[in-house]
Amino acid sequence: MNRLEHTRVYKETNQESSIVRINGVQFGGGSFTVIAGPCALENSEQVLATARSVEKAGAKVLRGSIYKPRTSPYSFQGVGRQGLEFLKLVKCETNLLVETEILLPSQLEFLTEYVDILRIGSRNMDNFELLKEVGKCSVPIILKRNMSSTLEEFLLAAEYLLNAGNENVILCERGIRTFETYTRNTLDLMAVPALKELTHLPIIVDPSHGTGKRSLVLPASRAALAVGADGLIVEVHPNPDQAKSDGIQSLHPSEFATLMTELKSAAPIYHKTI
Amino acid sequence: MNRLEHTRVYKETNQESSIVRINGVQFGGGSFTVIAGPCALENSEQVLATARSVEKAGAKVLRGSIYKPRTSPYSFQGVGRQGLEFLKLVKCETNLLVETEILLPSQLEFLTEYVDILRIGSRNMDNFELLKEVGKCSVPIILKRNMSSTLEEFLLAAEYLLNAGNENVILCERGIRTFETYTRNTLDLMAVPALKELTHLPIIVDPSHGTGKRSLVLPASRAALAVGADGLIVEVHPNPDQAKSDGIQSLHPSEFATLMTELKSAAPIYHKTI
Amino acid sequence: MNRLEHTRVYKETNQESSIVRINGVQFGGGSFTVIAGPCALENSEQVLATARSVEKAGAKVLRGSIYKPRTSPYSFQGVGRQGLEFLKLVKCETNLLVETEILLPSQLEFLTEYVDILRIGSRNMDNFELLKEVGKCSVPIILKRNMSSTLEEFLLAAEYLLNAGNENVILCERGIRTFETYTRNTLDLMAVPALKELTHLPIIVDPSHGTGKRSLVLPASRAALAVGADGLIVEVHPNPDQAKSDGIQSLHPSEFATLMTELKSAAPIYHKTI
Amino acid sequence: MNRLEHTRVYKETNQESSIVRINGVQFGGGSFTVIAGPCALENSEQVLATARSVEKAGAKVLRGSIYKPRTSPYSFQGVGRQGLEFLKLVKCETNLLVETEILLPSQLEFLTEYVDILRIGSRNMDNFELLKEVGKCSVPIILKRNMSSTLEEFLLAAEYLLNAGNENVILCERGIRTFETYTRNTLDLMAVPALKELTHLPIIVDPSHGTGKRSLVLPASRAALAVGADGLIVEVHPNPDQAKSDGIQSLHPSEFATLMTELKSAAPIYHKTI
Repeated sequence: MNRLEHTRVYKETNQESSIVRINGVQFGGGSFTVIAGPCALENSEQVLATARSVEKAGAKVLRGSIYKPRTSPYSFQGVGRQGLEFLKLVKCETNLLVETEILLPSQLEFLTEYVDILRIGSRNMDNFELLKEVGKCSVPIILKRNMSSTLEEFLLAAEYLLNAGNENVILCERGIRTFETYTRNTLDLMAVPALKELTHLPIIVDPSHGTGKRSLVLPASRAALAVGADGLIVEVHPNPDQAKSDGIQSLHPSEFATLMTELKSAAPIYHKTI
Repeated sequence: MNRLEHTRVYKETNQESSIVRINGVQFGGGSFTVIAGPCALENSEQVLATARSVEKAGAKVLRGSIYKPRTSPYSFQGVGRQGLEFLKLVKCETNLLVETEILLPSQLEFLTEYVDILRIGSRNMDNFELLKEVGKCSVPIILKRNMSSTLEEFLLAAEYLLNAGNENVILCERGIRTFETYTRNTLDLMAVPALKELTHLPIIVDPSHGTGKRSLVLPASRAALAVGADGLIVEVHPNPDQAKSDGIQSLHPSEFATLMTELKSAAPIYHKTI
Repeated sequence: MNRLEHTRVYKETNQESSIVRINGVQFGGGSFTVIAGPCALENSEQVLATARSVEKAGAKVLRGSIYKPRTSPYSFQGVGRQGLEFLKLVKCETNLLVETEILLPSQLEFLTEYVDILRIGSRNMDNFELLKEVGKCSVPIILKRNMSSTLEEFLLAAEYLLNAGNENVILCERGIRTFETYTRNTLDLMAVPALKELTHLPIIVDPSHGTGKRSLVLPASRAALAVGADGLIVEVHPNPDQAKSDGIQSLHPSEFATLMTELKSAAPIYHKTI
Repeated sequence: MNRLEHTRVYKETNQESSIVRINGVQFGGGSFTVIAGPCALENSEQVLATARSVEKAGAKVLRGSIYKPRTSPYSFQGVGRQGLEFLKLVKCETNLLVETEILLPSQLEFLTEYVDILRIGSRNMDNFELLKEVGKCSVPIILKRNMSSTLEEFLLAAEYLLNAGNENVILCERGIRTFETYTRNTLDLMAVPALKELTHLPIIVDPSHGTGKRSLVLPASRAALAVGADGLIVEVHPNPDQAKSDGIQSLHPSEFATLMTELKSAAPIYHKTI
């Protein structure tokens, strides 16, 4: 394939970076935009408490899955469609945008009714049939990198979305699989500037899945800012030890507030606004 | 998770290996069963010519995808539903069973009408929504290992199928992703005996994707037999240099015949029948 | 680098495979030669008991390290130079050849006095200064692949030996590092036929380090024969549970005898003699 | 092994970080110390020109190898012992400290006479015999991580040095080997805060080998600062296109000056002084 001539995702010479704009929130163009919230939406109290705390700290979007792809069929699979009520509540009670993961083309219709950003998880990065269908909608999409995909494969997965008509694609680096066992994944921070050389799309980082350890989320987030990312997607839970999934890597709201304070003070150095 | 108590896929002490039986063809139980055919079905001439030659050489099942998940949206994506006609023709003109890849739950109804075995490709091994739906049908399923999945993740993906009701699952090792670039993948042959320690399900090997090189298909197949696999899935094309995909790793029919002759003479050593 | 013109290790068109001959034992040329013995030499009883049992079963060379490179400085580092007495004893009491690992150029003089084959361990594959010095001696050398080296890097490490004057080099595949944790390493069996395409040197397989599990040594050895290897290096210990290192992957002498019986009956299929 | 009780390298509860001090230059303790210079020392003009420019920009130590471990025996292997004259010249003409790589115990005596810091390269991280000998000297040591070592293996390699008596050890992350081919290695920036949780030793980052691409050295360096590293080791060459090795990843002196200016303005945010 001759990339430069035939693709929409690879950058042409002198091409400017794209900006994804959603109701006053933007990814790219000098913004460092933070998405935060629980791994999985559990109940309205958990969702609202998290939403209010992350909004106060400076997040612009609430994250939260209602469908959870899990390695074991016996692990918690998410609250399902009823979780849309929680997202509606967040939009009612706060100024946050909301995002959630889509697993099936058949979920497209009802998810796009309530959700500001759709997320395609790393296990679905190369579920090309899903990409083809989701690419037909106009809702912005976060595309997470598969844990063993090359940068080229990642970009060509995004190409499926752009080729289907949706140009509002935000790439997300979330850790790759290596031989290391101390961390859940090896967060490939250098993928951010490497991808910036190749594509015009905005890129965010997931420091929570990328490390799998609460204690490493803060340094990973600092580095994401320093390395040129356009934002973060961070797991925050009001009571991480009770979380139905990923508690071990979720920040307590007060830790998230500290993180945001730090990032705000560092952002100008990197010509970013939070 | 306590595997031994709660799963269907992990082997209990002294549990015998399962046998998947399909119209007189079996996977497991001392058979070494060979599936062969083109990567992608292209036209009736290609399909029939391949089918006749692989049947004559001793294959029991014709492989052939009508839907092709491809890294780039601009690569050949398969002939689509019309390809079912080619499979019907094969069943009419030969005694082969036929198998093909399923990408979407919505394909289940028409594929199961014509196809003897469904294949779930490596990129969909952790497409759990697909697994849940395909697991509801009664057609035997080949589940290919994701190129970066651990053995445990592979088995838990199979667990989705068994848990949904389908116990006719055949595991397929097809190469993992490593740092090596001489071969397309690193064929993890030792996964076969390792999986045999863990599960009762039959296991086959894909020497074509596993190596990506025609010249390595024969040694890989010999080793698969020696290491205890229950069969192979091999790419064969009447004119590999003209193949629309994977020509570089496809055997010419005469090479496939040589492979089968060799395997038949080695099989008794390993207490297998071909 | 233009390989074909400038190297000694890469195969030229139509070049025959090399044979390494040592006092009536040969690697390459249709032989399947088995090296066996303890990971580390511990005392004369252990060494002699192992030597006699592996000789009886058909091994031609006793393996045994007197220097052990260990991840931790507090792990057993080998019996050291005194272990040469054990090797002398083996040569006195049996017809076996003996091999051992060399760690330093300064060990060359006294090791070559007693030892028939020197082994360069995987951690020293890219210790180029060691290669340059060991390459100056005339004793045959087993060069183990580093656990993360590409085939090209492996061959260029062998090139250091050949370039220094020693052409009696035997390559050894011993497992690579991947994300899998069920086995100690991922034994890259396909490296054998891949290397056979590239080089004329003989290649053996280490099924013990390659799997790290006693139960997998037998299938790995079967596969090594099937895939075209010229021999094995297998860990055997008279009392594996008491071994000072690698007991978990060492065969009991009776298991080794069973392995050899199986290999002898399979060898003719692959045109090898044991 | 029970780490906390028996090792010198793992951090005990509440243990403070160590500081390595060398003639007024320090690693650790709030300093961000930059080592810069050519991959290989070539001639006095190249060395002096580089030394003066990096000193002016704020580097404290000149790097430069006189012995080069190379994958191929036919690649440039370094100028050898005569290169010590270049290092002497640098110490005469500038206020920089100098460091170089040691490959053999026999080089210890003459290298320690001229050199302020010894470097053990990634290929020698698990050359334990070298570690045992170098650990006996009192000169500070930079220990580079092997490209496929786990954090635990890296720390236990450092333990060899500490156990031999040398406590002035500086760890260096320089990229790990993954499936990605766009960059030379995958720089594991998160290893820095992960190691900070485990050990008291200072840690620096090599953005040049870690990325293999000049254009990525700046973002990698920014991220190293942000993630908590205690310094950098950067390749700089007065004429990168003419470099005898690693030119593609070497900065031009003016690029290095820009990098230093940026780092100096960002350092206070991370409570570091340059």
